[in-house]
Amino acid sequence: MNANLIRHAVHIAAILGLYLSAAMFLPALIDLYYGHPDWQVFAVTAFIVGGFSAATFMATRSGPPPFSKKFGFLLVNVLWLAFSVIGAIPLWLSSMKLDFAQAFFESVSAVTTTGSTVIVGLDDAPPGLLLWRSLLCWLGGIGVVVLGLFIIPYLRVGGMSFFKMESSDTSDKPFARLATFSRAFLAVYVTITLLCAIGYGMTGMNRFDAINHAMTTVATGGFSTHDASFAYFGSLPLLWVSTFFMTLCSLPFSILIVFVARGRLDALRDPQIVVFLGYLVVFSLAVAIYHRLANGVDFHLALTYSFFNVTSILSTTGYTSEDYSLWGPFVVMAAFIATFMGGCSGSTAGGIKAYRFIVLFNAIRSGLNKLVYPNAIYAVRYGRNTVDADAQRAIFLFFITYILLWVFGSLAMAAFGYDLVTSVSAVITCLSNVGPGLGSIIGPIGNFSTLADPELYLLSLMMLLGRLEVLTVLVILTPIFWKQ
Amino acid sequence: MNANLIRHAVHIAAILGLYLSAAMFLPALIDLYYGHPDWQVFAVTAFIVGGFSAATFMATRSGPPPFSKKFGFLLVNVLWLAFSVIGAIPLWLSSMKLDFAQAFFESVSAVTTTGSTVIVGLDDAPPGLLLWRSLLCWLGGIGVVVLGLFIIPYLRVGGMSFFKMESSDTSDKPFARLATFSRAFLAVYVTITLLCAIGYGMTGMNRFDAINHAMTTVATGGFSTHDASFAYFGSLPLLWVSTFFMTLCSLPFSILIVFVARGRLDALRDPQIVVFLGYLVVFSLAVAIYHRLANGVDFHLALTYSFFNVTSILSTTGYTSEDYSLWGPFVVMAAFIATFMGGCSGSTAGGIKAYRFIVLFNAIRSGLNKLVYPNAIYAVRYGRNTVDADAQRAIFLFFITYILLWVFGSLAMAAFGYDLVTSVSAVITCLSNVGPGLGSIIGPIGNFSTLADPELYLLSLMMLLGRLEVLTVLVILTPIFWKQ
Repeated sequence: MNANLIRHAVHIAAILGLYLSAAMFLPALIDLYYGHPDWQVFAVTAFIVGGFSAATFMATRSGPPPFSKKFGFLLVNVLWLAFSVIGAIPLWLSSMKLDFAQAFFESVSAVTTTGSTVIVGLDDAPPGLLLWRSLLCWLGGIGVVVLGLFIIPYLRVGGMSFFKMESSDTSDKPFARLATFSRAFLAVYVTITLLCAIGYGMTGMNRFDAINHAMTTVATGGFSTHDASFAYFGSLPLLWVSTFFMTLCSLPFSILIVFVARGRLDALRDPQIVVFLGYLVVFSLAVAIYHRLANGVDFHLALTYSFFNVTSILSTTGYTSEDYSLWGPFVVMAAFIATFMGGCSGSTAGGIKAYRFIVLFNAIRSGLNKLVYPNAIYAVRYGRNTVDADAQRAIFLFFITYILLWVFGSLAMAAFGYDLVTSVSAVITCLSNVGPGLGSIIGPIGNFSTLADPELYLLSLMMLLGRLEVLTVLVILTPIFWKQ
Repeated sequence: MNANLIRHAVHIAAILGLYLSAAMFLPALIDLYYGHPDWQVFAVTAFIVGGFSAATFMATRSGPPPFSKKFGFLLVNVLWLAFSVIGAIPLWLSSMKLDFAQAFFESVSAVTTTGSTVIVGLDDAPPGLLLWRSLLCWLGGIGVVVLGLFIIPYLRVGGMSFFKMESSDTSDKPFARLATFSRAFLAVYVTITLLCAIGYGMTGMNRFDAINHAMTTVATGGFSTHDASFAYFGSLPLLWVSTFFMTLCSLPFSILIVFVARGRLDALRDPQIVVFLGYLVVFSLAVAIYHRLANGVDFHLALTYSFFNVTSILSTTGYTSEDYSLWGPFVVMAAFIATFMGGCSGSTAGGIKAYRFIVLFNAIRSGLNKLVYPNAIYAVRYGRNTVDADAQRAIFLFFITYILLWVFGSLAMAAFGYDLVTSVSAVITCLSNVGPGLGSIIGPIGNFSTLADPELYLLSLMMLLGRLEVLTVLVILTPIFWKQ
């Protein structure tokens, strides 16, 4: 039974492998165009991965896949692991001389749209490799929206089930809807990427940089083609263009699709959007005012840098325009806290997410009221809807597990010898799929290049845990999951 | 109606005031005995507080108090606030020249059995003042056991209600039981204090130091009569005596009482005790082994220092024997995490507490199982008992509120200009009533003397929040509480 489930999951992963091997020809062509010998790495890897995937596809062929929750959990884990491993191969074999742990970390960072990097010398890196990172990130962004809007609600993980209830009342044919939705989503995703690239091109980037950054912006990934990230370009309008697109892609894509399909914007009243935009503006303004007062920076500049960097963290993108950790302790703390928070459900953003905070705060309020009047009924609301006890419980457990994982991860990082600030920020930036941490090693102008293999594997696991809403991964580690 | 409740609460607080004013003669006598002029401060304050309390007592006289949950919440808050303010007065007027915020912080630190201090120069401080701090701490310890065993379960705060259910089935006359219990508890509390003092006297302390430290050990408070805390004495046996009594007083007092009354120790199988002792031993051994390996310290020494300092944090006492933050990043992280954890319910220890972690981990396991088999029933267990949904929910909300308060408090500390490590550790050490934080200011060999008034008030609030199980304080801040 379990063997059968694994076989089916591997079969579907093999299909992903075929697509990814096809995608490798893109960086191969780019390297060929720029005359970089690494085109051979991509071409050879494409053939090997393609051949291996095809063989696996044939070998694991059988009837239609068994639809069950158990299979759903297994499939999600197998797909993201395969995605990460296959993505790592060309990075590992490239002229950048990464070891496998580094290549794996970089690939996981891409497919989970985190954007933490182990590579120093991006400015002189082979263009094919840069494009491959961006492409993995962009494809990872597609994966996560599909995951968030369809798979996770079906699996009832982390309290997203009540989003499913809300949106599914528009149609009673989920598969017909899935097909329609997928086409509409892809159209929107590609369009936003193109618009973002054009915006970047008009405000200071060359064509190659614009396309790469557009791909990692829309995925809220945050990989740059330069070690200095956005500081390289020194363009203020560019920062505002990026702020706009990072914000846009932290909103649920379903809303953009409804807007495109029916021209309606009333879905913007979704409480998670109001709350997300609310804390984005409050954090950005607070940091800007602090930066102005503490460091005497011109307010327009402070506002630009603050909105860009705060949005970058809250949208879980992870670009940086300068070392904001030098602005003062309040900004360091704000960046640290923002790293936990995240964007909206159904977007490419990670983190704990706005709708969970809405439910948590409302549950605390209702709990306090109930302490005084135990027999009264205080519903926990999300906008006009009541959040049922199961969904609340799922959200509580998600939050608690998230915090405990962060604690255990931080303890492990400290055991590897990292100071408190580096340890706690490394784990949370990976778990929330943000990108930069704090401290001299992995801070806003740092990177993960000096970390040893055990740390890289630990943090890779954290990125995957965060991206798959934590419980999706933990569930396959329980004994009961594997019982016949 | 609300005015009536407040009147009754103030009436009971006035009784506390009378007792406290009587208690002030003790430090007055000690100062007189040692020939220190501060005896006048205590004598005068005793008369003023006594007179004021008597007048308030008369002015607020009326029928029997209205027993309701609302009154319970109000009373607990009013009592602890009165306790803190009255305790602060002689500290404020003493020759140590503290401003009121400092005296209030010191008093709150004492009555919440936290043990953080703003006083530098304890070695030369008036003996009356030192005894007053210890006495406040010791009385605060009595208060918190009564709170934890009787009041908090009645108020159904933070999931302690299921302890009430467990223990109340031994008798159906709660008030008769309360009287019997109170006598037994006081006998046990006084006896342990004396035994601890004798133990301290035999292993290196003079009589005055032994009595003071015994009082703050039993209360898991952690105030010392020397700036260097236990490092002053330089005695290894002393550290083991202290470790033993700190551990003992982190266990539920009900168990000690049952042991004394009936000679039975089977209550030691309470899961919270097993888990608390389990993580205490694991943390201590891990730190000792790390200290041995990283710093080449003799293993016997490493074990002594590790057990003493880890127990000091986990029991939320807060003594230190040296600057363990220099032992390495793993130890810093372990100390940081231990500051959240705390002891057992029904003891003088604070923190999140072992029984909550048991329920949290079991709830996560049951939640993961339910993801795979949504229709199966997986009970959340605490030992042989099933934890009902209400108690689970209370524990979830407690944990979430605790973490969010820590986050907001840390942001405020950062806004006051403190670095990340100082901010996050200051707030959690106060919220968990531990004592020392991390970093150069409030670390193991530091203190809170350089903090300005706003920070001291913020941290005082955190100590009170933590001591009163958080929700007890938050509930009186809700509008619904004050509605007629």
